[in-house]
Amino acid sequence: MTAHEATAIEIAAMRRALELAERGPAAGVNPRVGCVILSPAGDVLAEGWHRGAGTAHAEVDALSHLRSGQARGATAVVTLEPCNHTGRTGPCAVALLDAGIGRVVYAVGDPGDHSAGGAEHLRDAGVEVVGGVLGAEAEAFLDDWLFAARHRRPHVTVKWASSLDGRAAAADGSSQWITGEVARADVHRRRALADAIAVGTGTVLADDPALTARDAAGRLLDAQPVPVVFGTRPVPADAAVLRHPRDAVLLSGHDLVADLHLLAERGIRSLFVEGGPTLASAFLAAGLADELLVYLAPALLGGPRLAVADLGIATIADARRYDFTDVTRLGDDLLVVARPNPSRAPRPSASPTEGT
Amino acid sequence: MTAHEATAIEIAAMRRALELAERGPAAGVNPRVGCVILSPAGDVLAEGWHRGAGTAHAEVDALSHLRSGQARGATAVVTLEPCNHTGRTGPCAVALLDAGIGRVVYAVGDPGDHSAGGAEHLRDAGVEVVGGVLGAEAEAFLDDWLFAARHRRPHVTVKWASSLDGRAAAADGSSQWITGEVARADVHRRRALADAIAVGTGTVLADDPALTARDAAGRLLDAQPVPVVFGTRPVPADAAVLRHPRDAVLLSGHDLVADLHLLAERGIRSLFVEGGPTLASAFLAAGLADELLVYLAPALLGGPRLAVADLGIATIADARRYDFTDVTRLGDDLLVVARPNPSRAPRPSASPTEGT
Ligand SMILES: NC(=O)c1ccc[n+]([C@@H]2O[C@H](COP(=O)([O-])OP(=O)(O)OC[C@H]3O[C@@H](n4cnc5c(N)ncnc54)[C@H](OP(=O)(O)O)[C@@H]3O)[C@@H](O)[C@H]2O)c1
Ligand SMILES: NC(=O)c1ccc[n+]([C@@H]2O[C@H](COP(=O)([O-])OP(=O)(O)OC[C@H]3O[C@@H](n4cnc5c(N)ncnc54)[C@H](OP(=O)(O)O)[C@@H]3O)[C@@H](O)[C@H]2O)c1
Repeated sequence: MTAHEATAIEIAAMRRALELAERGPAAGVNPRVGCVILSPAGDVLAEGWHRGAGTAHAEVDALSHLRSGQARGATAVVTLEPCNHTGRTGPCAVALLDAGIGRVVYAVGDPGDHSAGGAEHLRDAGVEVVGGVLGAEAEAFLDDWLFAARHRRPHVTVKWASSLDGRAAAADGSSQWITGEVARADVHRRRALADAIAVGTGTVLADDPALTARDAAGRLLDAQPVPVVFGTRPVPADAAVLRHPRDAVLLSGHDLVADLHLLAERGIRSLFVEGGPTLASAFLAAGLADELLVYLAPALLGGPRLAVADLGIATIADARRYDFTDVTRLGDDLLVVARPNPSRAPRPSASPTEGT
Repeated sequence: MTAHEATAIEIAAMRRALELAERGPAAGVNPRVGCVILSPAGDVLAEGWHRGAGTAHAEVDALSHLRSGQARGATAVVTLEPCNHTGRTGPCAVALLDAGIGRVVYAVGDPGDHSAGGAEHLRDAGVEVVGGVLGAEAEAFLDDWLFAARHRRPHVTVKWASSLDGRAAAADGSSQWITGEVARADVHRRRALADAIAVGTGTVLADDPALTARDAAGRLLDAQPVPVVFGTRPVPADAAVLRHPRDAVLLSGHDLVADLHLLAERGIRSLFVEGGPTLASAFLAAGLADELLVYLAPALLGGPRLAVADLGIATIADARRYDFTDVTRLGDDLLVVARPNPSRAPRPSASPTEGT
């Protein structure tokens, strides 16, 4: 073992720290973090975890259980790189230094623009620092939070239901039901997993959707995604979305990147774009869809009501390319899941003929 | 055993008759038919099969091997109900009667309007007749011929390739390539299995396709489908389709049912409608697609170039409903095979709201 590798005891402590992290809230601005403080001999001195925005960070929570001086020369094992940022609480890197911690072992680097740099700060102050311990597990555990922190926006799923020929409705606008019950239940289930659900004002005015997550019997689930409405037309005072258990967020949609940034700042890590076609197409055209969920019905409709509108694509080389990551039969229908194919993304600054 | 059931010897003879049938040509106006003549003691007296339009039918071919009077009281085991129709050859039912055959065992009833009734004619004349022996095997063997005979048209496969949002090309018309190599090779393979390939004049004028079936190395295959062009605009004298090894069939497309009838009369049992969107949509709108082959690329294009045009469907109850019969990954793409769902077909005479 060298100073740059974690010991078996530290790895075991990291596993425990991940368990502690799980006790924190799974949604919100802040990540779930756990911390274990080990004596130089390897005994557990204290444990801590983060209980959500505005409360102590995991390191500080753990240190708070120790007598003054007790952490001197000890090792802090923490699931996320100690922050270097003065927010509602002071920077953890400083708290660890002040407590006299001699060694820090962490799993995942802090992706935040403001909060990163804790490891460097500690190293500069002479603390031994080892990163990446149980990194893959911790990455998977912090998945959605890391995505939002790295991209400064929620992970966006764009969903639509269409006939095999890409129509979202018949010529007269009727669309109930293109897909069957099994597919619709799947949408409900996936919707409930997102932190927020978005529709455009077009859908609010046409369908007055409740945007609640319900079980098969129609009962409200405990976890309710935040309803988000994009558009400038006023949402009617009696709209169902305004009676949602969570306050609706109303955004203009004029600058989707800025709007998404705002949602991320409110702790929304995943957004489920439910439609309609105009809003969904705006996300697609802007390259802001991280996942497509396309429910295809074994039907043809023809006609003008397209599930995906114009995307500003002139020529085949500029097609938006994805990978089919999953294809599943759902009753009579088909669910096609796709994710952007990074190697075939049109380069924004290249001329069309240079694309792939 | 009764007079209405086949004996074990007769069933074995039917198996042999099916083997004999396979020696005939697999394409053309006439079906492949085999015949075995058994003595009253169950010995094989003669075998025959049909060698294609204009040649002797299987029963007559078998009888031709016998001396006058030798067939008296014998049993004819034949894969298709003996015809009752005077075409280029006389009716087989009469030939069997004239030869003194006492019993006829057949597999599949003759679906032809003109040729059916042979069994009845024989029964009326006092011959014992047993039908349906190895019926399922023979039905499967005569599959495409029976379809064409029963529907008086070829089995129609409508194929298209599109992006996941149902576009056949980008806004500027470029479409090479929406789908990848594996999908395109699959199209070639399936095309070669059809008796004929159809395109509209739009595709001839835009793409000048050869409509030949080629192997992976681009060499012409032995079996070449008949090229069919639908439309009224003249096909240019230097069009590749006019250099096809088989003579191109040019049809107006004004009455697709009549045109298909004509193709069936030329012995075309299966038609592969290759496109473009206008012709494919005409087949779809007319309810003349027995199978859809939809090659979906993991791409979005948006824009106006739809793979399926208007189908005259006003409301969701009138959607054309299919069943997904097969879904296969082909390289990066997806092949979705669908067939009409008979229980959900809109009733043509019903008002829209009465649909399902
Ligand atoms: N098949 C499906 O999966 C599905 C799902 C949902 C809805 N639908 C159907 O879709 C229909 C409504 O379609 P729709 O397209 O009118 O509704 P929509 O997409 O819900 O709303 C369109 C509106 O979104 C607003 N918007 C906000 N940001 C935008 C941006 N960046 N770009 C463009 N627009 C933006 C605009 O409203 P302002 O003009 O107010 O600014 C725009 O008019 C309904 O009939 C509904 O039933 C189908
Ligand atoms: N993505 C694909 O799978 C695929 C496959 C093939 C072609 N394409 C593309 O499709 C484009 C051509 O499209 P298109 O739609 O113009 O071509 P098309 O469907 O090949 O031809 C349309 C023409 O078919 C004739 N026609 C015959 N019977 C008809 C009927 N019952 N109803 C309507 N039309 C009938 C009409 O010609 P008249 O006016 O002469 O009577 C009509 O203008 C080309 O760019 C080609 O590359 C794509």
